[in-house]
Formats: sequence, C-alpha cells, structure tokens
Amino acid sequence: MVSAPDPAVVDLLGLVAYGELLAFDRLAADARLAPDLRRRAALCEMAAAEIAHYRWIAGRITALGASPDEAMARYAEALEAYHDSTEPKDWPEAVTKAYVGDAITDDFLREIADGLAEPDRRLILDVLHDSRYAEFAAAEIRAAIAADPRVADRLSMWARRLVGEALSQAGRVAAADRGALTTLIARREGVDVPALFRRLTEAHSARMTAAGLNN
Amino acid sequence: MVSAPDPAVVDLLGLVAYGELLAFDRLAADARLAPDLRRRAALCEMAAAEIAHYRWIAGRITALGASPDEAMARYAEALEAYHDSTEPKDWPEAVTKAYVGDAITDDFLREIADGLAEPDRRLILDVLHDSRYAEFAAAEIRAAIAADPRVADRLSMWARRLVGEALSQAGRVAAADRGALTTLIARREGVDVPALFRRLTEAHSARMTAAGLNN
Repeated sequence: MVSAPDPAVVDLLGLVAYGELLAFDRLAADARLAPDLRRRAALCEMAAAEIAHYRWIAGRITALGASPDEAMARYAEALEAYHDSTEPKDWPEAVTKAYVGDAITDDFLREIADGLAEPDRRLILDVLHDSRYAEFAAAEIRAAIAADPRVADRLSMWARRLVGEALSQAGRVAAADRGALTTLIARREGVDVPALFRRLTEAHSARMTAAGLNN
Repeated sequence: MVSAPDPAVVDLLGLVAYGELLAFDRLAADARLAPDLRRRAALCEMAAAEIAHYRWIAGRITALGASPDEAMARYAEALEAYHDSTEPKDWPEAVTKAYVGDAITDDFLREIADGLAEPDRRLILDVLHDSRYAEFAAAEIRAAIAADPRVADRLSMWARRLVGEALSQAGRVAAADRGALTTLIARREGVDVPALFRRLTEAHSARMTAAGLNN
C-alpha cells in the first residue's frame, strides 16, 4: 500500500519541476542572442539539461501518487513573473542570468535537500546544475569584460537586479506554496535561518568576484 | 597523420547539425502552444534530443578537422526560411510539423547513410528520431481530429504545405551545399533516384494515413 505523499515534498518537487520547465524555455530563447553557433549550442545544451532533470522530478511526483501538473501550477505566476522581469537583452546578460540564477537555486536546493528523506534528498542533489555550465558562463562574462571593461559595471548592476527580482518573487512563491518550503527548512535539526541566508549571500558574492563582477 | 576530410561528408554533417540546432529552437518555441504542462514537456524533450544529437555531429565535424560553424553556415538561410514559412499557429499544427518533418528527414538520412563509410554511417543512423516521439505526435493528431473531425482537413492541408516548403527549400540547400548531397546519393551503387523519391513519398503517405490525415 502506498501511504499518502508528504504534501511539503510534493510542493517542493512541483516548484523545482516548473522552475526547470521555464528555465528550458528561457534558455532556449536566450540562445538566439549568442554571437556564434558554438556558444548558441552551449546555451541550448544547458536548456536541454533542464528538461532531463524535469523528467526525473515529474516522474517522482507521479510515483508519489500526485499530479505533476497540479504540483507545478501554483508556482506558474511567480516563476513566470521572475523571467518576464529579467529578460536578457544581449549575450552577456543572458550568460550572467544563467550564472547567477542557477547557482543561487542550487545553493538553496542543497540546503533544502538536507531536510529530506531518501530518495528525495538524492534526487534534489542530482538535479543541481553541472559545474561546467557555470565555468562556461563565468568565462563568457570575463571575456565580455576583457573586451570592454565598462561592461563590468553594467553586468554587476544586472546581477543585482536578478537577485532583487528573485527575492521579490520568492515572496510570492512562499505565499503560493502553502508553507511547504518553510516547513522543509524548519524540519532540519537546529536550523539557523539567518545563518542560511548568510551562507547563500556569501557564496553569491564569491561567485560575482570570480566572474569579475562587483557586489 | 590525419588525411583531408571528405568535403561531401563534412557538408552533410553541417547540414544535419544546423538542422538539429534549428529544430531545437523551433520545438522549444512551439512547446508554448501545448494545452497542458505534460504535453509541453513532451515537446521540450523532443527539442532536447535534437541538441544531444547536435553535439555528436558537431564533435564528428571537429574530429574530421573541420569547423562546425563553417560547415553549418551555408545552410542557415535555407533552413531558417523553411522554419519561418512554417510557423505553427496552434498545438495540432506544431505536432503535425514535428510528425511530418522529422519522419521525412529521417527517411532521407537513412537513404544517404547507405552511401557513407563508417563511422559516419552509424552516426547518421544514431541521430534519427526516437520512434516514441512519432507515436506521441501521431496520437496527438488523432486526438485533435477525434475532438473535431473538421481538423483533419486543415491539418492535411498544413502537412501538404510543410512538404511543399521543405521541397522548395531543399532546392536552396542543393544550391548551397556545393553538390555534397548529390555526390553522396550518386556514390551509392546502382542508385535509382526516381525510386528513392517514390520510396520517400510512399512512406510519407502511409504516415499521413496512420495519423488520420489525407494526402
């Protein structure tokens, strides 16, 4: 007999799944901004990886006896609002968005995974982004800055806007998810939420510096 | 020592590679027409498969000592013109385009593969589309017709337009490819070109019927 699925876990998986479906869509569109076919293909591959991960997560939601469509639907508005408000207008903005957004998402999911039972813990860790994509994006950002040092300021401002929009939409996600993420975070033994945010912020700052951007 | 790559093979691989990059782009965009998230994800997965195949082909072009970008560039105009002139305006048109276009491409590549030496013969056969995608598309077409029988005429007309546009752009590809495809086809022992076209046409007709469309 299958026991009733943990609603907080289904909600989390729904959020991750829709995040991946949308990331695919936007990366596929952003790929057109690439200056050559090699770079375009690289962004298309990043998009394709999101879909492979989407499939795993949707499969797990189904295995838990829930509907992926329903689990995803409640996040549509907030996640689409994030992407609509952060549409890159050129290639350096597109790779910066992938670089900044993927890493923050991954850091956050890594923290959440700690509070999950198996196999969901492992599944969440398995859908984190491949580090070679981050290396590709960071190299593109550094190359854009090397070609024109003034780009550093513009992209740094763009990265701050990305974080600001993500935080503002995170509030809408929290409102939509019936407390699932809060529940999962609070479930971890002795969790220190301010320390968690500090870790996320410090890791983001270190990544900005590594790519030649300022905080 | 690496001997000079066969220019006809490099040209063919460039055509296939760019076809896949563009198919990714258009399927990713068409996925937005899906009536629900499950169907949207299915089209996204079809797109993602194109990128995986693109990677294999681009890798082979590089291994042959040629540049994927250069090998693809000459086909950009004709392939983009095909997609620009066949933009689906709803979900049934999107799946019909995938159904008709993928299968004709595969049939054609299967014929060409016969004239290639290994490992290129095997590579071309490996990038043919997974039959479960065709089954998915055909089921979607039949479902659309079941919901509204008048759709059959509209989609049949659409399929004829797709074939017409493909043939007309094939003429531009032949003009762009320095005779590569003709060379490769002519290289096969005792090839009978009219018979080849007859085979392609008959297979297309059988697929139309299988999906509930008329020729």
